[in-house]
Amino acid sequence: VSSFRAEIAEQPEVVARLLDHADAVLPIGAAIKAANPVGVLIAARGSSDNAAVFAKYVIQQRNRLPVALAAPSLFTHYAAPPRLAGYCVVGVSQSGASPDVTAVIAEARAQGSITVAITNHPDSELAAAADFVIQLRAGSELSIPASKTYTASLVAIALLSVAIDTDPAFEAALHLVPEAMRQAMGCEDQARQMAGLLAGPRLAVIGRGFNLSTAEELALKLTETAYLLARAWSAADFLHGPIAVAGDGLPLVVVEAQGPTSAYTRMVATRLLRAGAEVFQIADGTQPLGQVAASITLSTGLPEVLTPLSLAVAAQLLSYHVAVRRGLDPDKPRALKKVTRTR
Amino acid sequence: VSSFRAEIAEQPEVVARLLDHADAVLPIGAAIKAANPVGVLIAARGSSDNAAVFAKYVIQQRNRLPVALAAPSLFTHYAAPPRLAGYCVVGVSQSGASPDVTAVIAEARAQGSITVAITNHPDSELAAAADFVIQLRAGSELSIPASKTYTASLVAIALLSVAIDTDPAFEAALHLVPEAMRQAMGCEDQARQMAGLLAGPRLAVIGRGFNLSTAEELALKLTETAYLLARAWSAADFLHGPIAVAGDGLPLVVVEAQGPTSAYTRMVATRLLRAGAEVFQIADGTQPLGQVAASITLSTGLPEVLTPLSLAVAAQLLSYHVAVRRGLDPDKPRALKKVTRTR
Repeated sequence: VSSFRAEIAEQPEVVARLLDHADAVLPIGAAIKAANPVGVLIAARGSSDNAAVFAKYVIQQRNRLPVALAAPSLFTHYAAPPRLAGYCVVGVSQSGASPDVTAVIAEARAQGSITVAITNHPDSELAAAADFVIQLRAGSELSIPASKTYTASLVAIALLSVAIDTDPAFEAALHLVPEAMRQAMGCEDQARQMAGLLAGPRLAVIGRGFNLSTAEELALKLTETAYLLARAWSAADFLHGPIAVAGDGLPLVVVEAQGPTSAYTRMVATRLLRAGAEVFQIADGTQPLGQVAASITLSTGLPEVLTPLSLAVAAQLLSYHVAVRRGLDPDKPRALKKVTRTR
Repeated sequence: VSSFRAEIAEQPEVVARLLDHADAVLPIGAAIKAANPVGVLIAARGSSDNAAVFAKYVIQQRNRLPVALAAPSLFTHYAAPPRLAGYCVVGVSQSGASPDVTAVIAEARAQGSITVAITNHPDSELAAAADFVIQLRAGSELSIPASKTYTASLVAIALLSVAIDTDPAFEAALHLVPEAMRQAMGCEDQARQMAGLLAGPRLAVIGRGFNLSTAEELALKLTETAYLLARAWSAADFLHGPIAVAGDGLPLVVVEAQGPTSAYTRMVATRLLRAGAEVFQIADGTQPLGQVAASITLSTGLPEVLTPLSLAVAAQLLSYHVAVRRGLDPDKPRALKKVTRTR
């Protein structure tokens, strides 16, 4: 049995457990609110960096705090970090073991920033470096490609956001996530069918707004588990040049959810379909796009801001089945170990 | 004659002209210095977004100001922009005509931020929306893929950085750029040879630090002119998952310059070579990597921070020759117009 597949299935329970410990995040949110930061800087690598993309939307939209993604080499190789006084600085790392992410948090704390570690390993160097720790409580993740620690990181970010600026409706919606993930698990046949049509070796993914994170995570997951060269773009960035690559049999996956950017993403999808491109749809809460080659369509009722959680499950199942179909072991991609330590 | 090729060759003169007008940037730098901003937010699309990646390194390293890249959909579709009081907000767009980039600047100005437009069109909506304009003075760019407006944007960013925090050595080095670009133009035979080995349809690019911008710009240029699905990663991010895609004949281009991250990038390149990958090298000021399939090696003497200018020329020449070799018209990629207006 694949640990990647098993850990995908664990996610409803992992999220429910993390929500049961939501109160642990309240004092962190209160401390950030009291500090009244001028902005948030996030340091992360790999899947955690895609969680940071989610944070870039949630924290800017809900908390109205500008969010920057760190360039860790400025803290390590160049020894020229920016001035971070007045900032809240967040490190996201399932292992908590990557020296470059820890270096950002350590420098920020030395400068007097308020620092938070989001990690599955509360005994890690990252956790030790930060003022506050949000523990993912996801249990051991044996698969090298992350699944449950990715979605747990999204939930941790959502909990942090709502702990800074409370909103009972948002909190209530968070409790719908485990059931929405179960619904996504029920779409495995659709994922398997779509996987049968994605022979590789290339793939483009289009998303926008909150689900740009999902598009990036799908591209990363397909790259590391199924060895497709997969690249995600925001629907708007795609029009500024990369759309020229559409054609020559390149499959394009559109990731979307009901919300303010949906019409825009669908406009791009429709344009691609009219040009004869092979388009696939992964969606939550929107109408099916006609003429797509295959689709995974959810209708979870989640507000758009939380659909990166249901759609991540669909993206993981798709990646798993593409890898299996290509005869690969999704648990142990070549050239990778579970813990990557970069400077 | 290709306008893309002609405009690549114009760059030494475009940069020299922009440097002749460096004094125009001084009052903008003085105003930003006086405003003492808490951070810089940059809005951009396409090649300009890769110029923003350059800015992320230069402004954080030289001016120690945290730099964030904007999520324009929060300003347009979601109508939920972050609070930007105290920030300096910069829009980069050769046309100045994309409504989403202008929306970020307009909102920031309404919030009281200090705003700067970097554009080749001082009569554009973007320019009208900003407090200050840095005019690229690059002349008409007829080719749809940007070349001279990209490098002019990098120079404008460098001029802005040095106008905020002066440094005679940095200013002197800027005047070496036109000659360094001429040297890069002299490497066209190497670019043509490398292009002959890049049959497509996939390509990965690895860079780090200041030349992450060059890696991203090479990937974009190859995607839009030669229809390769090309993806760039920082050398560190690559190790956190994507390295699994190396193999199966995927060509990898390593972009590097002499500086603090060079050893790290070369460690990754060496690891890829040992695993039997086909590695290409585009470098300024470093030693040749043994066993690479082909290389473009410059020795311009530029400080690392300015090598994205010499290396961009090499990247453009390579993209041009890959497109020509594939029988494509690099001036007019399919599905694109010169001015892209996204919301």
